[in-house]
Amino acid sequence: MILMVKRIAIITVGLVIWFSPHPVEISDPAWQLFAIFVTTIFAVITGAFNILVASIFGMVTAVLTGTLIPSTAFSGFSNDIVLLIVMAFLIAKAVVKSGLGKRIALLIIRKYGRTSLGLGYSLIATDMIIAPAFPSNTARSGLLFPIIYSISIENGSNPDDGSERKLGSFLMFTSMFGIGLSSAMWLTAMAANPAGAEIAKAYGVDIGFGTWILASAFPTIIAAVIIPWVIYKIYPPDIKLTPEAPVLASTELKKMGKMGRDEIITASVFVMLVVFWGLSDIIDINKTIIAFLGFGLLLATKVFRVKDIKKEGEALSTMIWFSILYIMSSQLNEMKFMDYIGNILANQIETFPTMVAFIILVFVYVLLHYLFVSQTAHMLALLGVFLGAGKSVGIDPTPLALMLLFATNYFSAITPQGSSCNILYISSGYITPNDVYRIGAILTFTCFAIYMIFGIPWISLVL
Amino acid sequence: MILMVKRIAIITVGLVIWFSPHPVEISDPAWQLFAIFVTTIFAVITGAFNILVASIFGMVTAVLTGTLIPSTAFSGFSNDIVLLIVMAFLIAKAVVKSGLGKRIALLIIRKYGRTSLGLGYSLIATDMIIAPAFPSNTARSGLLFPIIYSISIENGSNPDDGSERKLGSFLMFTSMFGIGLSSAMWLTAMAANPAGAEIAKAYGVDIGFGTWILASAFPTIIAAVIIPWVIYKIYPPDIKLTPEAPVLASTELKKMGKMGRDEIITASVFVMLVVFWGLSDIIDINKTIIAFLGFGLLLATKVFRVKDIKKEGEALSTMIWFSILYIMSSQLNEMKFMDYIGNILANQIETFPTMVAFIILVFVYVLLHYLFVSQTAHMLALLGVFLGAGKSVGIDPTPLALMLLFATNYFSAITPQGSSCNILYISSGYITPNDVYRIGAILTFTCFAIYMIFGIPWISLVL
Repeated sequence: MILMVKRIAIITVGLVIWFSPHPVEISDPAWQLFAIFVTTIFAVITGAFNILVASIFGMVTAVLTGTLIPSTAFSGFSNDIVLLIVMAFLIAKAVVKSGLGKRIALLIIRKYGRTSLGLGYSLIATDMIIAPAFPSNTARSGLLFPIIYSISIENGSNPDDGSERKLGSFLMFTSMFGIGLSSAMWLTAMAANPAGAEIAKAYGVDIGFGTWILASAFPTIIAAVIIPWVIYKIYPPDIKLTPEAPVLASTELKKMGKMGRDEIITASVFVMLVVFWGLSDIIDINKTIIAFLGFGLLLATKVFRVKDIKKEGEALSTMIWFSILYIMSSQLNEMKFMDYIGNILANQIETFPTMVAFIILVFVYVLLHYLFVSQTAHMLALLGVFLGAGKSVGIDPTPLALMLLFATNYFSAITPQGSSCNILYISSGYITPNDVYRIGAILTFTCFAIYMIFGIPWISLVL
Repeated sequence: MILMVKRIAIITVGLVIWFSPHPVEISDPAWQLFAIFVTTIFAVITGAFNILVASIFGMVTAVLTGTLIPSTAFSGFSNDIVLLIVMAFLIAKAVVKSGLGKRIALLIIRKYGRTSLGLGYSLIATDMIIAPAFPSNTARSGLLFPIIYSISIENGSNPDDGSERKLGSFLMFTSMFGIGLSSAMWLTAMAANPAGAEIAKAYGVDIGFGTWILASAFPTIIAAVIIPWVIYKIYPPDIKLTPEAPVLASTELKKMGKMGRDEIITASVFVMLVVFWGLSDIIDINKTIIAFLGFGLLLATKVFRVKDIKKEGEALSTMIWFSILYIMSSQLNEMKFMDYIGNILANQIETFPTMVAFIILVFVYVLLHYLFVSQTAHMLALLGVFLGAGKSVGIDPTPLALMLLFATNYFSAITPQGSSCNILYISSGYITPNDVYRIGAILTFTCFAIYMIFGIPWISLVL
């Protein structure tokens, strides 16, 4: 009954937006797509529809109303980031199945497994260390995810039996959000960072590898310390202390003995992925094809069997909703809807004092990520507009550019679809899309506060 | 060990083709893609690699060698026929889960269930009757498949417990091949038929709805009588006689009672699909979007639950291999490889007497379907070339056009990927891709003989 009321309310809201008068600068299809996209997101947040159902209805509405043509609506399915996620998902299952995931998980538990929070920190630390050599945050999620999945399983936390909150949900969320932080840490930890630095050049800001790490280190380390603790408090694992875990892990490792055939093959594939994903921007090789190759090798060697895929329908379901949301958002951007919003803001900001304008600009930049399904697309659409607006009211462009670029990374988990690097974590079943809307928002705005309070003075001190 | 030998042999064959000198008229990428595609198909036929693994390696090779760019290689994933199959697969599972499939299956068993062969004929007859109103053979497979699936399950034949050959494999193959026959029966039973009739016009052949059915009826009915019997002999079901089945079905139907909520919803969605798929060419509505809508409604009403998709990874696996083969074949066509082959033949044919030339033309036309993953693409690429070749040696274009157009339908199951309407049947697990290569070839050439022997005299008699 309540569900029915929610659904009627959501559809009503959608119709009201659809038929509302809209600025002449926004075309009819752009406005209609905005109405559909916002309604889809509301439907997920309010729980009126599951994210898969909401996305399907969103796409169907867009096509039947002529807002999008079918081929555009379907084009997300062949997007290479979408396919990379599907492959990473299947490879992760092979890592677990082969026993390799268990072994790495036990090694980590043996070292950091005394407390759940300690495990969380160890995951973020690992990510931070490998990040500068890994310009794809999605690929990085593909490497971290199977290990976290194995750690959770080893600790008896499994969504299949309803025990996901025992430990896995906490670790998954910590690592998912942590990828945003490790990406903010290094210029080379996310594809959009160097592109953003390039855009900032036009506004007289010069950001190299050194400048970036100098500016980011202090606020990012503070965030990396605070965020896992906040997650631990507001999204706590049922298991908190496991003083016996390292000992048990040690025993278990002894029992496992030497690496078996499947483990060795999987480890080789894993190393191949690390090497080629890491090098992919230097030798210009498509990351998704490397993932297909890795998965093909695991299948050909029967580490993962064709019949094992039968149970992995979750990957298909994730592929469907992510493809749809991805296309809606990128079309909204293509139809200049985002440009328009950015320009409106740029005009409004002139009436405020410099410092207030600075805060508003960064805040609105973060807020607008609710409408984006790609960090890079967001940055490309809005960074220039926001830097221009800041310049026009006399804000120093260097700290502004850095604050916007850091935000481009830490706002990744403000929504489930906010970054392709969230998708593996969510499709695991440990985190629901609704959890992300709730916890993700709190964490994103906590980061906003941390970066603004600690970052701005720090930057003026060191640069 | 044998597997390893097979694999090395297949890769060697691929390398030999790749490095063989090729005609100057064929570009290097076209030749390379041909080598990859043929090797992929050989790998499946010989069992060196499973169809999924072979396809993945094929695509990886094509991209890493620069034969295809990644975005082209991936573009099959957003093809609307591919997505239609995925949706039809999931809807079929909902039809079964809701109980509607069981009810329809019991009604059919009650009427025709005395023998397995009788069931096979009843399926083909049903298909023949609905076909003229259904210009999409893929959509038709989406309607027939869940019913056949339910009939098999009701008879205790299920691939999950290894009992697929008991009855299901026979019925699936009969219906899969039967779609080719029902499509050959009516001008309006397959999308490529009217397009082919249009192409034939340029060669002075006028084929309307009446001419088509007049010409096709006799050979098609003979084929529809013989083919199920051949399948029954060479791919026999374990259950042959089930005299008690109609009685049991009747009892079971009484036990089921009235239609429940889920059944009524599913039946409504099913009727919606029938109506819109049937009308889709008149009111210009995308069939795939209708399928998404139907599936969305089944999810929103919880007839099929989001968590049920978890077990449907088979749809993903099918989607991957079919998308890849589809793109390889269509690129081969786009690169004018098929044109070249057709023209070679047209030049060779001149040395033969008319009747022999006629037979060779149709035979080669059928044979070339090994290289195509779409009946429509095949017809568009080759029908004109073959009609032209026939004309140049004085073959009457009307019977030749009809024989080629009928072949365009009945050769659909010569390979697993030969038509999108095979895919549901194969992804069900009742039929393996290798079965299709073996049995499909026998049946296709049986049909070739039937149509040539009975069709040509019949056409000269009635037209």
